[in-house]
Amino acid sequence: MSMVESIAQKARNAFPALSKVAAEEKTRLLEKIADLIWLKRQDILDANKIDMEKGERSGLTPALIDRLRLDEKRLMGILNDLRQVAALPDPVGEVFDESILPNGLQIYKQRVPLGVLAVIYESRPNVTIDVAGLALKTGNCVILRGGSETIHTNSALVKAIKTAIDGSAIPTDAVQFIDDPDRARISELLKLHQYIDMLIPRGGETLHRFCRENSTIPVITGGIGICHLFVDDTADLGSSLEVIRNAKVQKPSVCNALDTLLVHQNIAAQFLPMVVSRLKEDGVTFRAEPQAYQLLKEYENVVFPAQEKDFDTEWLSLVLSLKVVQNLDEAIHHIRCHSTQHSDGILTQNSENADRFISEVDSAAVYVNASTRFTDGGQFGLGAEVAISTQRLHARGPMGLRELTTYKWVVRGNYQVRP
Amino acid sequence: MSMVESIAQKARNAFPALSKVAAEEKTRLLEKIADLIWLKRQDILDANKIDMEKGERSGLTPALIDRLRLDEKRLMGILNDLRQVAALPDPVGEVFDESILPNGLQIYKQRVPLGVLAVIYESRPNVTIDVAGLALKTGNCVILRGGSETIHTNSALVKAIKTAIDGSAIPTDAVQFIDDPDRARISELLKLHQYIDMLIPRGGETLHRFCRENSTIPVITGGIGICHLFVDDTADLGSSLEVIRNAKVQKPSVCNALDTLLVHQNIAAQFLPMVVSRLKEDGVTFRAEPQAYQLLKEYENVVFPAQEKDFDTEWLSLVLSLKVVQNLDEAIHHIRCHSTQHSDGILTQNSENADRFISEVDSAAVYVNASTRFTDGGQFGLGAEVAISTQRLHARGPMGLRELTTYKWVVRGNYQVRP
Repeated sequence: MSMVESIAQKARNAFPALSKVAAEEKTRLLEKIADLIWLKRQDILDANKIDMEKGERSGLTPALIDRLRLDEKRLMGILNDLRQVAALPDPVGEVFDESILPNGLQIYKQRVPLGVLAVIYESRPNVTIDVAGLALKTGNCVILRGGSETIHTNSALVKAIKTAIDGSAIPTDAVQFIDDPDRARISELLKLHQYIDMLIPRGGETLHRFCRENSTIPVITGGIGICHLFVDDTADLGSSLEVIRNAKVQKPSVCNALDTLLVHQNIAAQFLPMVVSRLKEDGVTFRAEPQAYQLLKEYENVVFPAQEKDFDTEWLSLVLSLKVVQNLDEAIHHIRCHSTQHSDGILTQNSENADRFISEVDSAAVYVNASTRFTDGGQFGLGAEVAISTQRLHARGPMGLRELTTYKWVVRGNYQVRP
Repeated sequence: MSMVESIAQKARNAFPALSKVAAEEKTRLLEKIADLIWLKRQDILDANKIDMEKGERSGLTPALIDRLRLDEKRLMGILNDLRQVAALPDPVGEVFDESILPNGLQIYKQRVPLGVLAVIYESRPNVTIDVAGLALKTGNCVILRGGSETIHTNSALVKAIKTAIDGSAIPTDAVQFIDDPDRARISELLKLHQYIDMLIPRGGETLHRFCRENSTIPVITGGIGICHLFVDDTADLGSSLEVIRNAKVQKPSVCNALDTLLVHQNIAAQFLPMVVSRLKEDGVTFRAEPQAYQLLKEYENVVFPAQEKDFDTEWLSLVLSLKVVQNLDEAIHHIRCHSTQHSDGILTQNSENADRFISEVDSAAVYVNASTRFTDGGQFGLGAEVAISTQRLHARGPMGLRELTTYKWVVRGNYQVRP
């Protein structure tokens, strides 16, 4: 049996015991993990330093180095999230859809843990803590496969988590970590459907495609967002500008940042120059389709003609695509053709248009008059997230505790038989 | 573009229009389909005769011929189910998990259709009507791929369905049928994740494995049930016997039929001979592990020593595995090792044992004092089912209308930005 299979089997074998653990016990464990990580913070930050030095030597970009960097303040923020997750109600055991059938059978659904999760991710070490916390809180075993660039940090974090588990009612094998950076381990992992119930790749399109094409385990893909805002001709333009700026510049490297701005033709001549003049101060450059480009000639040092592919690009940087549309219909049509169904919004004072946008734009999160940057487990009140799903099966958008559960049907009778 | 891709693309393109259709319109369509199939019943039964004759010539077993056979009575039963589905409330549009965030954002989930479904199935022509009905009722497009042995029947049914759709507000392309029996079409279908959101194979383990290993579309597998009943030492033995008999003989060829009977050692000597003596009258034969076999020596013409693999066999016929267990723990352990997590039950008067069984046996449907034969969309009040899922993601057990939906997050604000 390979190392990866042995890890997966250990997680599977730990599941029955973990799924029986009481809610309070799991809450206490999460708090203990938070305490222990903080206690061991020096070891963890030392390990993180090794990863960063290695990253610098191997020529990682400053942006990537920043993603993997931990310091006391960041660690404290992550642990606060973990304590928030600990304090949330445990969805496991919840009874719903109860009914009595005409034959007297009592039937209901009861929420149970999903089983064994495997998460493949890159750089950001907060994922290790977020995912382990959400999984344990819901009675799931988890197999973590972080990126090679954070292997020392993640090892130190997992060591602290396992120490916290030791001596609790939770089986230590509930959390597994694959510390071999060889990518061949991922290929092995993808075939272990007899042990693993759900696979979440958190990374770029290449990783997602690889998982989709090679996994025999059900996969949740997501985290890739070509996000749109449409400014209707009734929008409050001053407020809209601030929402657009927030969606584009507050954290441009993430999936819920704005990629394309669609502007109603009636206000384009007034509003597009406002947008460009404000956002260029933040360092934003623009890709404008011809009609928009015409209106922005005086900004030729920051506004460039858009290529068709620009509207299918997730920028992850300070670039914004611009397009003038005739009306709501054209906006919806454009979004339908180019969105990755992550987060899309309308800015409008027209409630009919708002309703039509909500009903006809079929993305994981649909916004009226708010920044797309809110699509996030913490912001949505879920405490944290294991991923943001952009597929339609099982869960859409930020996945928190509930999305790590499934249900069983319970049928209680009095020796009924089927006629 | 291949025929299959063109079919999938047509379904995908029909989805936005279908997803906007009002609930009453969809209800009316299902009733119209039922009317029209009944009106065209002679064409459909004629087509069915061709399939049956072809089946007989090609040497299909009488059991298989019976599965594909339609007559007026069976057709009427199927259409009654369809009318029941029509009358159920439409889950699409339902709002849930509503809240106001501290920053004033109004956030809720709204149920929306899943998108485009593809279902690969065999023999039974009721699946064509059940699946089309459930899909249309929930605003989903569907690609049907029935077995080659029912191709004439299915073509006639789909023709009637499409005639009913024609002239309604529903796009005709919403229902697609692959009428090429070549299995290569399945391989093509499995790769079309850009058009298809969920794939359901309904068939044997070989088909499921093929889909799991080759599909880039999320797959729901299920319908394979190694089902158990455990008779505790407090069970009402007379009533238990009737439940066991129902679970085994009422329809032995289906997934929710009983495969293994576990009997508490305290009652085994009394109860096992009762079971064998009663069920042999129905033509059941038995595979008994040594301890059970010892108790059943006088029935040597119907009770045979069990092989280890017998406890991992879905019989689909009048065979029952028998095993004596020491107690509830051993019963739960046996089920954990051998169940396919479809339907498992306990027969007991001890409510503590009932609760422990429910909590520790993690199958899609868990029973106390009832026949496993109830695991069925119709029996559970769902009207019909597209499949019975035995995986954990998205849906477990019978999948009806709700399980053909997903949700979007709707966020309504007043120009909020993320700090």
